[in-house]
Amino acid sequence: MIEAETKALDRRLARLEGQVRGLRRMVGEGAYCVDVLHQVSAVRSALDQFAAALATNHVRHCIAGHSAGEGHPHAKAMSEDELFDELKGTLSKLLK
Amino acid sequence: MIEAETKALDRRLARLEGQVRGLRRMVGEGAYCVDVLHQVSAVRSALDQFAAALATNHVRHCIAGHSAGEGHPHAKAMSEDELFDELKGTLSKLLK
Amino acid sequence: MIEAETKALDRRLARLEGQVRGLRRMVGEGAYCVDVLHQVSAVRSALDQFAAALATNHVRHCIAGHSAGEGHPHAKAMSEDELFDELKGTLSKLLK
Amino acid sequence: MIEAETKALDRRLARLEGQVRGLRRMVGEGAYCVDVLHQVSAVRSALDQFAAALATNHVRHCIAGHSAGEGHPHAKAMSEDELFDELKGTLSKLLK
Repeated sequence: MIEAETKALDRRLARLEGQVRGLRRMVGEGAYCVDVLHQVSAVRSALDQFAAALATNHVRHCIAGHSAGEGHPHAKAMSEDELFDELKGTLSKLLK
Repeated sequence: MIEAETKALDRRLARLEGQVRGLRRMVGEGAYCVDVLHQVSAVRSALDQFAAALATNHVRHCIAGHSAGEGHPHAKAMSEDELFDELKGTLSKLLK
Repeated sequence: MIEAETKALDRRLARLEGQVRGLRRMVGEGAYCVDVLHQVSAVRSALDQFAAALATNHVRHCIAGHSAGEGHPHAKAMSEDELFDELKGTLSKLLK
Repeated sequence: MIEAETKALDRRLARLEGQVRGLRRMVGEGAYCVDVLHQVSAVRSALDQFAAALATNHVRHCIAGHSAGEGHPHAKAMSEDELFDELKGTLSKLLK
């Protein structure tokens, strides 16, 4: 993964960590249950967006590696079958 | 989408339709709530698997269209940017 | 469960069955993947709402049975511990 | 909420915070995408379990407040209708 992508993913996770600390503060202060559940939804959604961004980067790199392999062989090049297996594995893991 | 894929997706949906009818039967017969919720989980999981299969086919076709475009232009060929936009849109929709 | 509740739950499931048939039609007609995934979200949400309605009815009946048990014993009356166990089991099943 | 419950919920959130830090470490070390997605599932599941525990406590207190109200009025006592509204709101929020 290139450095800019790793940084962008880490920023998402840093925000997520802050949201979990926010949940702890709410629970500690005895916030109303339905308000806490509202914040839980926000955390769940941030987690899903992180997972989608990570999976997008991954599949993009697999495609780029596969393309690079056409014509001039490349260390990370994937065959079409490997690429589709990787894609299938990533998408089904994304939903678990 | 090729015909074999459409058929495989339809078979998944036919099973899903049968599972929903199973839920109706359970509710009609006054089944125990926790057993019905167990069956709801099975339906949710079948729905997620259908969505993952559909998205995998779609992205695979986009990649194939993109590859076809390299060298000998092709009606459905996508540029690398279009391919990644398509990928990003599909993966984030998958999780909504 | 009282009859009006069973009917309301069945109406939800009948709509859900119709939505799954709508998915089959979309796939059969070769609809655009992201549009099908949009419809998948609608089905998932309808399924969650059915589950929440079912669980609400169930817990409500458990509470009513428990209340009925106070003072004048009742066939379906639950002790407070049984009620809380039932509640815990239902809520954790709801999220699986 | 009684103190023991608040502590148990905070322990869950402290673990969750640790899991998010674990995700950051994995991303920083360039871990394989599918392994990171596996860890994302674990975080999602921990978040759902926290939400279910919080909602269970809340509904339990509502029920206890309602029971307390029968016979000898109590400051936090809920009518049966208020109790059911609270229950419905909590369960539907739990799934959002």
